[in-house]
Amino acid sequence: MRLTTLALLLALPALRADEGMWTFDNLPTKKIQAQHGWAPDGAWLEHVRLSSLRFPGGSGSFVSRDGLVLTNHHVVRGLVLGLSTRERDLLKNGFVAADRAQELKVPGLELMQLVDAQDITARVGAAPGRTETERFRARELESQKAREELRAKTGLTVEIVTLYQGGETWLYVYRKFKDVRLVMVPEVSVARFGGDFDNFTYPRHHLDCALLRVYEKDKPYQPEHFLRWTQGGLKQGDLTFTSGHPGSTSRLWTLAQMRHARDHATPRQIRTMERRRAVLEAFAARSFEARTLVGGQIYGIDNGLKATRGYLAGLKDAEGMKQVEAAEAKLRAEVMADPKLRAEAGGSWKKIEQALARSEALAKENLMINARGSELLGTALNLVRVPVERAKAEKDRLPEFSEGGLKAMQERMLKPRSIPYNAELEIHLLTEGLKEARETLGAKHPFVAALLRGQAPEAVARLAVEGSRLQDPAELKRLLEGGAQALAASDDAMLKLARILDPFQRALRKKTEEQVEGPLKEHATRIARVRFARYGKATYPDATFTLRLSYGAVEPYAANGTLVQPFTTMHGLLDRFEGWGGQGANQGRDTWRLPERWLAKRSALDLATPYNFITSNDIIGGNSGSPVVDRKGELVGLAFDGNIESLSGRYFYEGRTNRTVSVDARAILEALAKVYEAPHLVAELTAKQ
Amino acid sequence: MRLTTLALLLALPALRADEGMWTFDNLPTKKIQAQHGWAPDGAWLEHVRLSSLRFPGGSGSFVSRDGLVLTNHHVVRGLVLGLSTRERDLLKNGFVAADRAQELKVPGLELMQLVDAQDITARVGAAPGRTETERFRARELESQKAREELRAKTGLTVEIVTLYQGGETWLYVYRKFKDVRLVMVPEVSVARFGGDFDNFTYPRHHLDCALLRVYEKDKPYQPEHFLRWTQGGLKQGDLTFTSGHPGSTSRLWTLAQMRHARDHATPRQIRTMERRRAVLEAFAARSFEARTLVGGQIYGIDNGLKATRGYLAGLKDAEGMKQVEAAEAKLRAEVMADPKLRAEAGGSWKKIEQALARSEALAKENLMINARGSELLGTALNLVRVPVERAKAEKDRLPEFSEGGLKAMQERMLKPRSIPYNAELEIHLLTEGLKEARETLGAKHPFVAALLRGQAPEAVARLAVEGSRLQDPAELKRLLEGGAQALAASDDAMLKLARILDPFQRALRKKTEEQVEGPLKEHATRIARVRFARYGKATYPDATFTLRLSYGAVEPYAANGTLVQPFTTMHGLLDRFEGWGGQGANQGRDTWRLPERWLAKRSALDLATPYNFITSNDIIGGNSGSPVVDRKGELVGLAFDGNIESLSGRYFYEGRTNRTVSVDARAILEALAKVYEAPHLVAELTAKQ
Repeated sequence: MRLTTLALLLALPALRADEGMWTFDNLPTKKIQAQHGWAPDGAWLEHVRLSSLRFPGGSGSFVSRDGLVLTNHHVVRGLVLGLSTRERDLLKNGFVAADRAQELKVPGLELMQLVDAQDITARVGAAPGRTETERFRARELESQKAREELRAKTGLTVEIVTLYQGGETWLYVYRKFKDVRLVMVPEVSVARFGGDFDNFTYPRHHLDCALLRVYEKDKPYQPEHFLRWTQGGLKQGDLTFTSGHPGSTSRLWTLAQMRHARDHATPRQIRTMERRRAVLEAFAARSFEARTLVGGQIYGIDNGLKATRGYLAGLKDAEGMKQVEAAEAKLRAEVMADPKLRAEAGGSWKKIEQALARSEALAKENLMINARGSELLGTALNLVRVPVERAKAEKDRLPEFSEGGLKAMQERMLKPRSIPYNAELEIHLLTEGLKEARETLGAKHPFVAALLRGQAPEAVARLAVEGSRLQDPAELKRLLEGGAQALAASDDAMLKLARILDPFQRALRKKTEEQVEGPLKEHATRIARVRFARYGKATYPDATFTLRLSYGAVEPYAANGTLVQPFTTMHGLLDRFEGWGGQGANQGRDTWRLPERWLAKRSALDLATPYNFITSNDIIGGNSGSPVVDRKGELVGLAFDGNIESLSGRYFYEGRTNRTVSVDARAILEALAKVYEAPHLVAELTAKQ
Repeated sequence: MRLTTLALLLALPALRADEGMWTFDNLPTKKIQAQHGWAPDGAWLEHVRLSSLRFPGGSGSFVSRDGLVLTNHHVVRGLVLGLSTRERDLLKNGFVAADRAQELKVPGLELMQLVDAQDITARVGAAPGRTETERFRARELESQKAREELRAKTGLTVEIVTLYQGGETWLYVYRKFKDVRLVMVPEVSVARFGGDFDNFTYPRHHLDCALLRVYEKDKPYQPEHFLRWTQGGLKQGDLTFTSGHPGSTSRLWTLAQMRHARDHATPRQIRTMERRRAVLEAFAARSFEARTLVGGQIYGIDNGLKATRGYLAGLKDAEGMKQVEAAEAKLRAEVMADPKLRAEAGGSWKKIEQALARSEALAKENLMINARGSELLGTALNLVRVPVERAKAEKDRLPEFSEGGLKAMQERMLKPRSIPYNAELEIHLLTEGLKEARETLGAKHPFVAALLRGQAPEAVARLAVEGSRLQDPAELKRLLEGGAQALAASDDAMLKLARILDPFQRALRKKTEEQVEGPLKEHATRIARVRFARYGKATYPDATFTLRLSYGAVEPYAANGTLVQPFTTMHGLLDRFEGWGGQGANQGRDTWRLPERWLAKRSALDLATPYNFITSNDIIGGNSGSPVVDRKGELVGLAFDGNIESLSGRYFYEGRTNRTVSVDARAILEALAKVYEAPHLVAELTAKQ
């Protein structure tokens, strides 16, 4: 490291040990070397990068010469469901292809491999313009031009990636794999043992893995790079890396934004979710069919509630917030001491505070003025707006009505339903939504008064739902194709309601954009610019669902009054199964049951096999399915989650307790060999050469 | 239940489900019946009571026709250490008597069985007197008289027991067993698997049991009542009872007392312990020998810190405190509405608040003015006081110098040391103690100034320690026997220091007694009296280390982001062992190791055997070793601890998460049969009739 860089590092707010979701071009190798006695070189990095893959919403990696791909079960859960039929429930029963002929094509799945990345910051920064707005627009056009050039030149997929909130602009070049087939998934009860209860917890016992295979021209694809399977396995203290696609973080928020989230926005969000849950639960209580219909939604809310409560707990962590506060105080002092930076962003922290205060005044209305949980009303609002927005120049439209947005919206509307339409559910949700708006804003609020016109919420909801045909794809198609004229001619009751709601929503949205979102965005960007000016690449950018490397060690942490074990084992899986009463007496709880296949094979298993483990790697949602790699560049595990303490990672990295939870590579082999009787897969994964 | 009782119950601050450490004469059977569908009758209660035993500091029970007694390993840990020699380390290696001839007599151990209890409240209450003080003294004398009468009549041990803070007075009649022999203890690493880390946690894996046998006239004693071993075992939801001796609770403290503990006293106590720990740690860092010398003390502080932090967490539990607040508001309102009660205690809550405020003013001095962690200075202070106090009438002495107190003090002083004397440690502790006093109170504080006389703390400490012979029992004996004259003639340097300290301590003690402790005691008693007048026996008294029954069900609770399993199994024991790296690679941590005997026998074990379990029973320290009994009156488990959430039980019962942790009866049998190869004990415990 040159002295200048060292000086820069010393000026930095101290990075916690093992902190960071680093881009592959900018790994803090000296720090890793100093801390762990080893750091990757260029060949290692290229090997791991080219072995890594991006899934829709997740990560994965090549793990065999013949194109086997490893990811999490939960990354492909929806796809597995899509491949299932009534007769062949792959989710419940799992799946193992006995040979390659049996491997199941996954329709629509595309995997992306980052083959190149080009820094176009200088080219884009040189784009001319007299005003800030002109320069912004010029930079945007220049980026798009550069992308088109590279796309034409390579024939590959190219994405513009903005890092450090605009500090750097890159073109990421991806190779896409479009023929992907399912090779093996365990039963969901094993992949997700303990269900929603165990989500985000540790000690954990999930075999959250799936194997797929990439094909080209109907033959197994042979990747140049793939991760060899470890022969030894990890032990406590070992250095590990995860290579994957963290989705998004808010670590560069100002202290005021975090405090606002802690004291207002997040508690409000939790209350909204709780209310929504109660409304669905009331519907579910009507009948078995009703519960079946909304069970998935309740499950989703529970999952979200657990995560959101975890975020809130993070925001309430005094030490973490102190860290944020200290970093901000330091940056502000440096900005105030430098006239140029001061002119750029000296007042921005205050401006953000003011915008947040204004957001509070609008919060209740913003919460109440949406479609109130009614799917039909949401559809109706979109329909009403389509001809209006389409008539405008693209730059003047509401963002979701861009040409691309319109196309996607239309596809969504006409797509066959995965859950059947139920008018009573629609009436229930709309009724409760209207009631809540009336309670919250008062019956005299113009929006409430206009919608209800003195009637009971239930009457309004029933009239609108029963007088609507918007659940019918044919009718939607007719209205979409018929444009403004067809819409104007329709007397659909839900469209009427949408026409009343539309002007209120537009007005509130404009006000919120002008008073809150605009200023927030502008001043966040200004702060990001001065931060990048001060610290540059000595730190890492917020997550952007692009490829990052994190590092850390297998390391216990203190929780629940004790020190938490670094590994769980297959003994632990059986302990929890038996501890809940075993197969017979599970007291009505299906949560910790095991499939018959596992019980039949339990005596064959080496129960001391490490099952899940924890490392201090810094990851977040989107990293699911990331390979965990050791210093030899071999696959030692499969990241699938964080512990509950890791949820604070949205806002800051807290190295004492934030842990990545991964499936141990040894557990996957043991299960493949002993439970799934797939010696061909074991042989392929462990092949020498 | 008669209507009047029902009405009384309805007037009560609601008892949480399963709350209460009930006396055997006053079990809320209707409530138990209503809640669990079954409640004990008189025969069941007598059977369980007479099967129960009191250990010094713990509980136990008869479990075989030939007088086998079951308790916790940690209840007899000190005794096991006492029976150990360098060649025969019973703590490390455990012990199993192959036959009765091998059973080891435990010197000094006495077990107590509660054979009768007589309510003398009426007799004592009738004792005459004109003033409050006279009546108090008369009641005391009357109690003692009644005890002597019963003692003479029965020839048994009789204790006066005050319940409900003076609401009831009882005589408890105990049969004592003085010939008790050790039959079996597991290795401490199994009894206390996970050591101090796992203390107060759950899921837990402790075989915290010990078997002893009562003898009479050198023959196994055959108790009329003993608990038969369960044949079935528990499952989730089952009703359980614990019969044992909860030590002490503070549930009847006023809200002001709890808040004072939360905001001042307990945080101060934690800081004091942390400082003490740091001082010992600094000494331990000097050498291996130094660490050996103070290791036990550090361990004890860690244990105490964990508990005290748990108490503090309880006091910070908003819901628990709300419950305390509501109960107090209710009682106060009722007291204010009743002229008689109002005259008794209407002002007492305010008086307690005032006393607490005054205690804050004296807190620093009270903390600093003791012997500052120096054993020699403590001894010197006692020596200086003995002749002074002995010259007074007993009623005028400092309480610890009563005739009984004096005798015990003398015995303690002359007892051989269990840990060798170390002058450097004494100097270190006294130096640090003096430094802390100077830091806290300032160098000019009269007490600090008088002790240091302008010298450095280290110089004062070294002079006092090196100029003292109080570590020598012969010298102590000489001074104790020589009385005032011998003391006056001594120029022992530590005695000199004690003579300086003595008047300061006495003055502060007097002030604290008058301003704080006196008023606290008086008004706590007044409040207790009005509470008993209102609610009487519809609730349970605070714990008094006398026999109580608690009830509850095997019931999971929410923690660590999930629902915690009701049972652990032997699989879990191995999971934690292997999860920490197993026998080979335990990374320097001995905490989760298993003895060779267990590893050798692991394949013989049925690993699905339930190991520990949790119930909602309301217990506290002193209940250790309590039998867990099912509705058949059979032994299903052995209580040994609570989870970390149970520590709030000192102040209130919080049924959502407070759980008793017990060893499952099935685990004890499995270990006896498979690991300890003791079929004779298995046969004795499971003998039909």
